[in-house]
Amino acid sequence: MSSGDPLAPVRARFPVLAPGHVWLAGAGPGDPGLLTLDALAGLSQAEVVVHDALVDKRVLALASPQARLEFAGKRGGRPSATQADISQRLIELARADRKVLRLKGGDPFVFGRGGEEVLALAAAGVPFRVIPGVTAGLAALAAASIPATLRGVNRAIILAAGHGEDEEFDWAPLARAGQPIVLYMVMRNLERISVAGKLTHNSFMATKRRAAAIGIAEKFPNERRCPVSRKNSRRYRR
Amino acid sequence: MSSGDPLAPVRARFPVLAPGHVWLAGAGPGDPGLLTLDALAGLSQAEVVVHDALVDKRVLALASPQARLEFAGKRGGRPSATQADISQRLIELARADRKVLRLKGGDPFVFGRGGEEVLALAAAGVPFRVIPGVTAGLAALAAASIPATLRGVNRAIILAAGHGEDEEFDWAPLARAGQPIVLYMVMRNLERISVAGKLTHNSFMATKRRAAAIGIAEKFPNERRCPVSRKNSRRYRR
Repeated sequence: MSSGDPLAPVRARFPVLAPGHVWLAGAGPGDPGLLTLDALAGLSQAEVVVHDALVDKRVLALASPQARLEFAGKRGGRPSATQADISQRLIELARADRKVLRLKGGDPFVFGRGGEEVLALAAAGVPFRVIPGVTAGLAALAAASIPATLRGVNRAIILAAGHGEDEEFDWAPLARAGQPIVLYMVMRNLERISVAGKLTHNSFMATKRRAAAIGIAEKFPNERRCPVSRKNSRRYRR
Repeated sequence: MSSGDPLAPVRARFPVLAPGHVWLAGAGPGDPGLLTLDALAGLSQAEVVVHDALVDKRVLALASPQARLEFAGKRGGRPSATQADISQRLIELARADRKVLRLKGGDPFVFGRGGEEVLALAAAGVPFRVIPGVTAGLAALAAASIPATLRGVNRAIILAAGHGEDEEFDWAPLARAGQPIVLYMVMRNLERISVAGKLTHNSFMATKRRAAAIGIAEKFPNERRCPVSRKNSRRYRR
């Protein structure tokens, strides 16, 4: 290894993924450049990578060539593994002394149901580690050069799930908080939520980019958006 | 390079930081393992790293040995560079054709004043790139094995600044949203905000861990916290 290798000190301090352990890691919003070093450490050591549908192929390509990739995804509207099945599979793999990486899009604890998996692992006595990732909603804002917070404009930012079991969820109190709302998994419900929360229609910016859709609540209309030119940053798009 | 090097494909696709460009990157909450690959790419190429007080020394140690580290931090209560000074310095460095990394703790667009710097760069015609990071408030929750969201418990999570110019900020509407609130930069104001927002005192979990302090609002009392044992994950603490 040449002394000029910027990654040598990183590799030297990679944490060790032990047999029988599960790392629950966020893969970030898609771009492998937004993967964390610890998630990469997991990918390079895992014998089994249990991933969901939102994990980008370019990220999975960083797994060890010896690793087995297992799809355990969920996708709106399609039949897929139940959450209990997935948790059970993680426990099985750990009990079979595999080195297990559970990889989820974004951050595993932000609308990723990582909490349920961690509860199941804890109940089963399986040692685990949670590795947070860059959450998709905030990354999508950054990709659009829109600051999540800006002095004099907003004091808070609300991350909310646009899809959930509770379709009767009352959006009005969140909207009345007067702070921008970033909606995840919202494309099917955008119109309904917009009406229920009395969010003004043209104050919404919806995008199908990855799993993230962004809603800007009524106190944050277009003219108060950070007027950053995208021209200067566009050259970096991939 | 041996074919078994897990980082070879990562290094091969490092984006290029060009002279006269500024990358505004999040360093994450402190642990270098939560640095993104793109932020590492910036550290390895930058000629000047302009960093704030919240960037961990272990992260700065990953900068190229040839890089100059410039402190441009702010810290509550201490005299420090003004925001205008910092933005002006970034523009100067870019105009002097340096490869510039502006490195901030957490995520540069989440209470990081990155928006103001990006506005200044855009106005000056300086090409820039924003690299989101793992925001400290969500990482702190993960470190405590507390899911930011959990089905059947909360549908949203609110990130809010506990410190700001607007000390008359009305916390009641955010508290009434009935969703957990993660408070940043709050240690000096915790008591006041708790009263103003009618947040129940023992529903707060405050921590001085890094810049993050975590408040759990009244709809999210202790008994509804995810009862994950920390025992299983503790062995991974550094």
